[in-house]
Amino acid sequence: MDDATERPPFTLHDIEQAAERIAPFAVRTPLLDNPALNERVGRRVLIKPELFQRMGSFKFRGAYNALASLPQVVRWRGVVAFSSGNHAQGVAAAARLFGVPAVIVMPADAPAAKIEATRALGAEIRPYDRWSEDREAIGRALSEERGATLIPPFDDLAVMAGQGTVGLEMAADAAALGVPLGDVLVPCSGGGLAAGTATAIKAKSPNTRVHAVEPEGFDDTARSLEAGHLCSNDPSARSICDALMVAQPGALTFAVNRHVLSDGLVVSDVDVMDAIAFAARTLKLVVEPGGAVGLAALLSGRLPVGDGAVGLVLSGGNIDPQILQAAFAR
Amino acid sequence: MDDATERPPFTLHDIEQAAERIAPFAVRTPLLDNPALNERVGRRVLIKPELFQRMGSFKFRGAYNALASLPQVVRWRGVVAFSSGNHAQGVAAAARLFGVPAVIVMPADAPAAKIEATRALGAEIRPYDRWSEDREAIGRALSEERGATLIPPFDDLAVMAGQGTVGLEMAADAAALGVPLGDVLVPCSGGGLAAGTATAIKAKSPNTRVHAVEPEGFDDTARSLEAGHLCSNDPSARSICDALMVAQPGALTFAVNRHVLSDGLVVSDVDVMDAIAFAARTLKLVVEPGGAVGLAALLSGRLPVGDGAVGLVLSGGNIDPQILQAAFAR
Repeated sequence: MDDATERPPFTLHDIEQAAERIAPFAVRTPLLDNPALNERVGRRVLIKPELFQRMGSFKFRGAYNALASLPQVVRWRGVVAFSSGNHAQGVAAAARLFGVPAVIVMPADAPAAKIEATRALGAEIRPYDRWSEDREAIGRALSEERGATLIPPFDDLAVMAGQGTVGLEMAADAAALGVPLGDVLVPCSGGGLAAGTATAIKAKSPNTRVHAVEPEGFDDTARSLEAGHLCSNDPSARSICDALMVAQPGALTFAVNRHVLSDGLVVSDVDVMDAIAFAARTLKLVVEPGGAVGLAALLSGRLPVGDGAVGLVLSGGNIDPQILQAAFAR
Repeated sequence: MDDATERPPFTLHDIEQAAERIAPFAVRTPLLDNPALNERVGRRVLIKPELFQRMGSFKFRGAYNALASLPQVVRWRGVVAFSSGNHAQGVAAAARLFGVPAVIVMPADAPAAKIEATRALGAEIRPYDRWSEDREAIGRALSEERGATLIPPFDDLAVMAGQGTVGLEMAADAAALGVPLGDVLVPCSGGGLAAGTATAIKAKSPNTRVHAVEPEGFDDTARSLEAGHLCSNDPSARSICDALMVAQPGALTFAVNRHVLSDGLVVSDVDVMDAIAFAARTLKLVVEPGGAVGLAALLSGRLPVGDGAVGLVLSGGNIDPQILQAAFAR
C-alpha cells in the first residue's frame, strides 16, 4: 500500500462526541442474538439491527451529527443533500428536528417508499436521472442558490463520526457481554459507515478484523484496498442493492478505511435475496438489499474462517414490498 | 367477581426461579423503542420482541422451565404436548436440549412452517383434526402408553412461570430506563403468558394496568373477567390468529388472571392484518397474527387513554409467508 494519501484527522474522540450529540434523538439499537443463526454459522453472531434506527437505517446518525456540528446561523439557512434514499431520510428527519428547511436531490428511480417517506418529513424533493445527470453538481448548484449547506452522504468527517457510533455501541455492548469480536461485517457504499465503525471498533478492540461488504459490480472499496489507491466501478454495473451504488470510494473515507479495514468481501444479488429471506423467516427482521450484504457474506461462506464472535451490521430495512415478497417466495 | 375459585400458589418467586433455569438457553430479548410508533400512538411504547426468542415465540420459556422442573428420571421417559404450533416448537426444542424424546399432537391445518420446524427438531408429530378430534384426550392417551409427561400449553404452574419471565424482563428493563409503565398489552389464548407476565409486572409495578388482548370470536378471557367466571367461545368461531384459538381460559390461568389483569381488549382480523403490515413496514419486524394482537389494539385505538409508557408484547413471528404477503399488499 503506498502512502500518497495522508490519513485524515479522524479518531475515536470524534465518534464519542457524535455519540453525545445524537443521544437525545437516535435510537440506541441493541445487539441481538439468534440461536438458529449461531448454529448455522458455527460462531456466535451479534447482530446490530440499524433497521430499528430512526427512519429505518443508520443514516440518521451521520446526518444528525453533521447538522448538529454546524454553527446555528449556518444551520438556519437550511441544508441540501443528494442521496439514493436513506441519507435523504436521515437529513430530512434531522432538519425537521432542528426546524430548518431541507432540499433532497433523489434519483427518480429510488424506491417509492423512500421518496414518499422523505417528502412526508417536510423536505423538498428534486428528482434526477441516476444515469444521465450529475447529482453532485445539482446539489452544489442548489446549495449556492439558497445559501444552504450541503450534507454529503459519506465523504465528510462529521457524517463519518455519526455513522461510527454504530461501531462504538457494538464494541461497548459486546464488551458488556464479555464476548470478544473476532470479525465485524459492515455494508459499504461510499465508505462512511465502514470508516466510522471500523475506527471505533479498532480503537476499542485492536485485534478485531473489520470487513467491508459490497455487491458485485460495486466492489470499488474491495479493489481499492487491494490496489492501495482509489478504483472506480464500471458505470454500466447494476445491483438490487440500491443503497450501495456509488462510482468510487470517497477520498476521506478511503484514506481512513485503508488503515482500519482488513479487506472487502463481495456478494451476488442471489446471495442478497437469500439473506433477505433468511432474515425474514429466521431472524424475523425486515432487511433491505443493501442492509443485508453482511448477512449474505456470512451465509454464503465468504467470511474467512476465524475465531471469536462475528459483529454483523444490518444497516437498514427500507425495502420495497415487491422485493421482500420476491425474496420470501424463494 | 365471586370468590369461588381459590387463587393458586403462584408468585413472583416462581417466575424468578424460572428465569434462572432458562437463562442458559433462552434469548434475553431487549426492549425496543420506535420513534414512528411513539409518534403515531402519542405515548412511548416499549416493545418486547418475543419473535426473537428461540424458535420464534415466547413458548420456549414455559416449555423449557416445565422440562427443567421435572425430576431427571421422569424427564428421561420423554414428553408429550398438544399445541397449535408454537408450544410444540418450544417443547421440541427444550426436549432436544435435554436429549429426551418428544411427541407433539398438532392440528393438521397448522401453518406448514410450524409443523416442519417441529419435525426438524427431532420430535414425532401426531396430527389431529382441529374440529372433530379432542387433542387433550389424544395427548393423555399417548402419555399413558409411553410413560411420557404431558407438558400442557398453558394450564400449568411451571409453564406459567416460564412465560412470566417475559414480564420480569420487561419490568427490569423499563425500570433501568427509568420509564414507568402505565399499561402492558399481552396477547392471550389460554392465558399462560398473560398470567405469568401480569404476575411479574404487578409484583414489580403494582399500579401498571395489564390488559389481555384477544381476537374476535376468541374473547373468552375478556368475557370471563367481566363475568367473574369461566366463559367459553362459540365452537364455530374462526380467526387468522391460529395461535390464539382455544375453547376457554385455563382453570389455573384464569384463577390468577382474575386477580392481576385489568381487562381484556378485543381486535378484529382486519386490525391484525393492519398491525402485521405496520410491523413489517415501520418496525421492520415479522410478526405472526397471534403475536400482533397487542399492536392491533394499540393502532386501532382500543387501549383506553392512560399515562406512562405502554409495554407491548409481540409474542411470536412464525407467520406463513402467504399471510405476510397479503398483509404487506394492503
